[in-house]
Amino acid sequence: MTAVSGTARGHFISFEGIDGCGKSTQARRLADRLRASGAEVVLTREPGGAPGAEEIRRLLVEGPTDRWSPETEILLFTAARRDHWERTIAPALARGATVITDRFADSTRVYQGTTRGDLTALVDDLHRLMIGVEPDLTFVIDMPPAEALARAAARRGGEDRFEAFGGDFQARLRDGFVALARTAPDRVRLVDGRGAPDTVAERIAATMAEHAPA
Amino acid sequence: MTAVSGTARGHFISFEGIDGCGKSTQARRLADRLRASGAEVVLTREPGGAPGAEEIRRLLVEGPTDRWSPETEILLFTAARRDHWERTIAPALARGATVITDRFADSTRVYQGTTRGDLTALVDDLHRLMIGVEPDLTFVIDMPPAEALARAAARRGGEDRFEAFGGDFQARLRDGFVALARTAPDRVRLVDGRGAPDTVAERIAATMAEHAPA
Repeated sequence: MTAVSGTARGHFISFEGIDGCGKSTQARRLADRLRASGAEVVLTREPGGAPGAEEIRRLLVEGPTDRWSPETEILLFTAARRDHWERTIAPALARGATVITDRFADSTRVYQGTTRGDLTALVDDLHRLMIGVEPDLTFVIDMPPAEALARAAARRGGEDRFEAFGGDFQARLRDGFVALARTAPDRVRLVDGRGAPDTVAERIAATMAEHAPA
Repeated sequence: MTAVSGTARGHFISFEGIDGCGKSTQARRLADRLRASGAEVVLTREPGGAPGAEEIRRLLVEGPTDRWSPETEILLFTAARRDHWERTIAPALARGATVITDRFADSTRVYQGTTRGDLTALVDDLHRLMIGVEPDLTFVIDMPPAEALARAAARRGGEDRFEAFGGDFQARLRDGFVALARTAPDRVRLVDGRGAPDTVAERIAATMAEHAPA
């Protein structure tokens, strides 16, 4: 086989957005809410989400910005994603669990594909060749870069390689995520990330209700 | 850009073969011989050959055989190769140096492409997408697997993940390298690795003389 097969049965949901936008908090809140209603939920993240993929993560999120070229970086993210899919996501979906992941392929599309030279075609070709699946539903938590960066800075310790690319980079990332939501409106929903976490969680719950099978 | 560009000027030579075949010794001897004649030679290896690529190497050559799926493994080898190319090989070739590498893309073709399910097409597609260059000349040092494994076992410490796949795997590897030499006879030369290192080095020197520009 090349790309992963389409035997998924559970619901596959991703959260995306710039660092500090609140997506990890919202992913956890959605997981808690679905668990409270009796669902089996696997809450995971990228890069990482499986023991091998977490080892690859350390190569990606630490160190200086020029540690890897964008092309090498894309390969490492895709290696971690393949491992994450095989070891964590696919088995969970196969047994009917809901999988909620903090980042998936859209992050590579935006971080590597559109912000550091135009590598969009390369990212897309590599995704088709080695991964080949998308979430059923993706929430992009949208927030002004200055506000998100201030939140991210308040909690960081070591994993700051991408924040170190600077504020202009963060602004291009935000534009990339907004553009992504426009090109795949059925799958990708843009959610206003400003306001209290409860307020944002309500926005997400409303979208979930609207998206749920009748 | 996607694949690497073709601005290479120096001579790019790779050594391939199963573990324990003597290719590292022969790569070093060829480097010494060319240096003695005044050439600048960069002797390098895969996986590794650049600081980042060496970090990826540790993920690949240590640990249990099932640490990665073949697909994840191919991505990690390609990430390491991309870094090795960008940081070590391409700059050396650009300044006119001869680069001699202990393993390159042919190892991925044989180790991942032909021995563990048929992933040949996937390996080839990924190579075209992310690397796109071949050595000018490749020596496959050929040796019966039992003899090579005994030599490899005598010197190993920790980096034994691929040897742990077993003797039948080594036999399939050898067949893969022999087949490779048949499909690309202009680039890939099969060299009998049996006998004293001096004898094997003479065989390689003869092929070099025959291959050198007039």
